[in-house]
Amino acid sequence: MAAGEFDLIARYLAPLSANAPLAYKLTDDAALLDPPPGEQLVLTKDCMVAGVHFLPTDPPELIARKLVRTNLSDLAAMGARPLGYLLGTAWPKDLAEETVARFAAGLALDQEEFGWTLLGGDTVATSGPMTLSLTAIGAVPTGQALRRNGAQLGDRLWVSGTIGDAALGLDLVVNGGFGASDTARMFLIDRLRCPTPRLALGQALRGLAHGCLDISDGLVQDVGHLATRGGVRAVIDAGNVPLSAAAAEQIGNDPTLFERVLTGGDDYELAFTATPDRDDAVRAAAQRVGVPVTVIGRIEAGQGVQVVDRNGAPIELAQSGYRHF
Amino acid sequence: MAAGEFDLIARYLAPLSANAPLAYKLTDDAALLDPPPGEQLVLTKDCMVAGVHFLPTDPPELIARKLVRTNLSDLAAMGARPLGYLLGTAWPKDLAEETVARFAAGLALDQEEFGWTLLGGDTVATSGPMTLSLTAIGAVPTGQALRRNGAQLGDRLWVSGTIGDAALGLDLVVNGGFGASDTARMFLIDRLRCPTPRLALGQALRGLAHGCLDISDGLVQDVGHLATRGGVRAVIDAGNVPLSAAAAEQIGNDPTLFERVLTGGDDYELAFTATPDRDDAVRAAAQRVGVPVTVIGRIEAGQGVQVVDRNGAPIELAQSGYRHF
Repeated sequence: MAAGEFDLIARYLAPLSANAPLAYKLTDDAALLDPPPGEQLVLTKDCMVAGVHFLPTDPPELIARKLVRTNLSDLAAMGARPLGYLLGTAWPKDLAEETVARFAAGLALDQEEFGWTLLGGDTVATSGPMTLSLTAIGAVPTGQALRRNGAQLGDRLWVSGTIGDAALGLDLVVNGGFGASDTARMFLIDRLRCPTPRLALGQALRGLAHGCLDISDGLVQDVGHLATRGGVRAVIDAGNVPLSAAAAEQIGNDPTLFERVLTGGDDYELAFTATPDRDDAVRAAAQRVGVPVTVIGRIEAGQGVQVVDRNGAPIELAQSGYRHF
Repeated sequence: MAAGEFDLIARYLAPLSANAPLAYKLTDDAALLDPPPGEQLVLTKDCMVAGVHFLPTDPPELIARKLVRTNLSDLAAMGARPLGYLLGTAWPKDLAEETVARFAAGLALDQEEFGWTLLGGDTVATSGPMTLSLTAIGAVPTGQALRRNGAQLGDRLWVSGTIGDAALGLDLVVNGGFGASDTARMFLIDRLRCPTPRLALGQALRGLAHGCLDISDGLVQDVGHLATRGGVRAVIDAGNVPLSAAAAEQIGNDPTLFERVLTGGDDYELAFTATPDRDDAVRAAAQRVGVPVTVIGRIEAGQGVQVVDRNGAPIELAQSGYRHF
């Protein structure tokens, strides 16, 4: 790349810190942050590697937005609001400067959408694939963060949005999916590349949800984390798992794809539990923020996660979710 | 690697978060942090790539400690104390689990030395070189952070410790350096692999130093940043730049190496300015924390950075410092 590190930072990244005067236009050794009074900070960090978490040919804007959104989804799962982020980028040495410009444009779009700002980071070169890391900083009123470990006996198990879209989108990208309509194809691939962090819902669920997390490694595996952390057993009614029209169309063409809905990753929907007497309150909170929520199961005594069909018979799955190694 | 992501985290990383109960043993979506009252948070992030910032054959303990220490050095430059960190690791798929274990052992050593703790992060696989990123979180009393931009006309220019050791250590690693004594060789390579962040000095300089930064890309280039940010000119008296005995020995063997002292990177010493009437206060503060400090020049009207010899004649340098691309 012709431009040096300092040029790239000044040209493409420093403008993204304009709303954070204590980031000093990224020219100092570190950024300062005034913590909001009465709140705890929420800290999370995700890494993405070309060829592992995204395709090197994906549009750079969407690579940036996925990086942002997967991190925001972690904040959403804790019921937090976003404050700002630090960005680490290892660029391949032969990268076109236009790629950096388009990556920064994607960051700018999502800064506006989610009302947060770049605070700092590091830009280095690599001989390997493009490697990205983002540290997200959020805030939550002290003591009110949602946790993974709160699921209680008798709770209902809820999810937001629709499940499996990203997994079916990945199937289309990898395997072609010749039977898919253009509408379904666009929708599913967009859900894969540009997930929607459920920030408003997470905040609306404070005080209502017991256990809560975001589904990134697959519904069954992540609900399994809710069960393990809560010391309980989760039962998922397969027939109640909410599907988008596009996902339903794909599964209509090939029913074996349904297992991928249950075990594929990258949903970035929230899974959470709440007592049945809060059903109305949960629905009202979700409606207030405009996000559909669906009961997909229940919390029982025991351990692990069980998927059952309409007759209550267990469904065996080939694998429970995404393994990183 | 045989172990999965969750196993690696539970086995090697979760124990490093034991002192941070709000990190929830790294099992939740994010960590919580109670911000210390009356302080601002200081946030910085550095990335390191095998083959660029360290050698793939370097001992994993030292790779971890260098990652930690370069970030702590940024906190030191702001006068901050360390609170905790988030860690992102992209491991090559064929990495031996022992490497992860040794890397974590290095982190543990430095957690004890610097009194901070792991708060969260992400562990992924890569097809490329090992890629690491660390986000350091520190705290500084509100309004008291040291900044790069404070250098004032008439200030003296100071540095901590000795300059150029790491650059000469790198020369030994890369070029062999057959003339070097074993003592010099060990010292210089250790300074390259395991720098000392000047945390106590940075904190002691609050209210005394005007401009301050840590020297990571080479003395001349980084002092140039002090000059640019302060809107002033910096003059470095080459003869006053403090050298270790080992560096002096190397330069005695090959005087052309002196330019590398001025322009090589990885010193992680502090460069700062202060008014001459604070000379005694600066020396007392440095003595209190046991770190030598030396006046190496002055701040004048103008711009840029100029290195001069004992007669005040300018010294021309082939390049001013490390370029990342």
